[in-house]
Amino acid sequence: MSELRQDPTTNDWVIIAHERAKRPNHFTRSKAPAEPPPPYRPDCPFCEGNESMTPEEEWAYRSGAPNGPGWWVRTITNKFAALSMQGSMERKDEFGLFRRMDGVGKHEIIVEAPRHDVSMALMSSQQVEEIVLMYRDRYLQMREDPRFKYVTIFKNHGERAGTSIEHPHSQIVATPIVPAAVRRRLDVAMQYYDNTGKCIYCDVLIVEQKVGSRVVYESDRFVAFHPFASRSPFETWVFPKVRQSAFGQISIGEAKEFAHVLRIVLLKLHKGLDNPDYNAIIHTVPFKDEVEEYYMWHMQIVPRVSHVAGFEMGSGIYINSAVPEETAAFMRGIET
Amino acid sequence: MSELRQDPTTNDWVIIAHERAKRPNHFTRSKAPAEPPPPYRPDCPFCEGNESMTPEEEWAYRSGAPNGPGWWVRTITNKFAALSMQGSMERKDEFGLFRRMDGVGKHEIIVEAPRHDVSMALMSSQQVEEIVLMYRDRYLQMREDPRFKYVTIFKNHGERAGTSIEHPHSQIVATPIVPAAVRRRLDVAMQYYDNTGKCIYCDVLIVEQKVGSRVVYESDRFVAFHPFASRSPFETWVFPKVRQSAFGQISIGEAKEFAHVLRIVLLKLHKGLDNPDYNAIIHTVPFKDEVEEYYMWHMQIVPRVSHVAGFEMGSGIYINSAVPEETAAFMRGIET
Repeated sequence: MSELRQDPTTNDWVIIAHERAKRPNHFTRSKAPAEPPPPYRPDCPFCEGNESMTPEEEWAYRSGAPNGPGWWVRTITNKFAALSMQGSMERKDEFGLFRRMDGVGKHEIIVEAPRHDVSMALMSSQQVEEIVLMYRDRYLQMREDPRFKYVTIFKNHGERAGTSIEHPHSQIVATPIVPAAVRRRLDVAMQYYDNTGKCIYCDVLIVEQKVGSRVVYESDRFVAFHPFASRSPFETWVFPKVRQSAFGQISIGEAKEFAHVLRIVLLKLHKGLDNPDYNAIIHTVPFKDEVEEYYMWHMQIVPRVSHVAGFEMGSGIYINSAVPEETAAFMRGIET
Repeated sequence: MSELRQDPTTNDWVIIAHERAKRPNHFTRSKAPAEPPPPYRPDCPFCEGNESMTPEEEWAYRSGAPNGPGWWVRTITNKFAALSMQGSMERKDEFGLFRRMDGVGKHEIIVEAPRHDVSMALMSSQQVEEIVLMYRDRYLQMREDPRFKYVTIFKNHGERAGTSIEHPHSQIVATPIVPAAVRRRLDVAMQYYDNTGKCIYCDVLIVEQKVGSRVVYESDRFVAFHPFASRSPFETWVFPKVRQSAFGQISIGEAKEFAHVLRIVLLKLHKGLDNPDYNAIIHTVPFKDEVEEYYMWHMQIVPRVSHVAGFEMGSGIYINSAVPEETAAFMRGIET
């Protein structure tokens, strides 16, 4: 019999389809891997040496002058940015019903490495540390602009995860509004805090550590686990052990340790599922709520091994054809 | 410059990416169409003549005896059902945080035609009427079971929409809980009703008819349009003109007219985008809220011409690379 489970942080239900559950190794990429990419592509704007093909760089860890080679992590404005620094912050209402405003914001690309053929899962710990430190730097920079309310840091790896660019990169988008989906997460957490005086994410973490069966990896200050109500096979959450509301509150030392855990998790996924496409997202609070105590920033990693179809779109209930306790055990067993 | 637009029925924002907006005909399927399917496949459990390959039929419009040929629309329990009629309705709490219950519910397949090689867009009006009447019949049947709180009726067309079965079919899932995503839609509508005394969907419809630029097709009692804050190119909503809370409240005459509009919309998509993959979903109220006046059932059709990636998953903000006013004009121009 299948089972309904509810995610306490969103109130969304999932169906864990025990009966048609697949073995964890079923989700391994079935088709033969494509030709490995070359270390350099002359037409790739993110490859070292091709800096003139991108907008001016915003920030880089580098030797040498800006907009030339010599960098190891490089941030640029997205050439096809969804939002831009110009425009009015005024919201306009049509018929009291349709609200719109100019697409004010900032949409940056973080190029994760000079080479074309690397992948975060296979990078050195040090390189992943530098990427996470860049996330932190850009967060701290964006929070200085009073027009921006929230920042979304994310990574799309592979075509099924929605990227068309092979060169490893992350993205960061500052928006002039708090997204409604973020507001709903906060509402659930605030309600819990009002009822209990505690942060719901902290309590989830306490239970996950006590139960243990869904934990994938743990360091001194971070825990990676497959959540109780995983929406899809191998969905992974990475939580700090000591509560911080906003990702930007991470210290440099913590950022390096988080990078270490992130690399281990991605490497386990890479080995266990043969380099799956995935999305990684950092959930955090709006800038102005950094002082609140009811939320904890965290990362969500979603391998794209299943489809979202009409049932999920209509009901918000995801059907997960793997059992989180089983996938977590499988991941724990993969050596790194 | 791009534009942020807010969907008044969910409060979710979308980015209409004017600058990188693509012409409506850009979304036409680019690869050559696959070999057309045969009218009959010996290994397809949904083809007429293969009835023994499925669970017993629940309901069929047919001549002849059940579980044999002679039907034109046929409903069966999904052989790989996500939910089942057995199990306890008791919710269990772990650590006061993790809620779970048996996967009680009903998951049916509506086989839309005896032939393998047809598609709702190209069926006769009469056949689509029969399918919609079957939706109605199954809704009315499922609402009789007091364990069921909500029913999701949907259709996945094509691989990108999440189906692996080529034979045309819809699905209907009754759940023992009101999905949180449904509850959130109801909350927004209820708030609007409390403020204004009106149904928000009715007011949206009044504006859409007044503005006209996003309307695709209109009959006496139904309107199809591309919503103001469309999440993806060619997203289409079909609304009844006179408010009904629940899909099950549709009369037989209205069901036939709705089928006519649905067929026209699907045919326009088929011709305009060369048979795109799509999901179609009926949004309705929980059974017990059928008497409420703040909601209006409607259908949402989402062609799968764009990817959901990390930004959408993190923020709930969808980036739409087409302008609804332009796609609606394009659809209006397609002859049926």
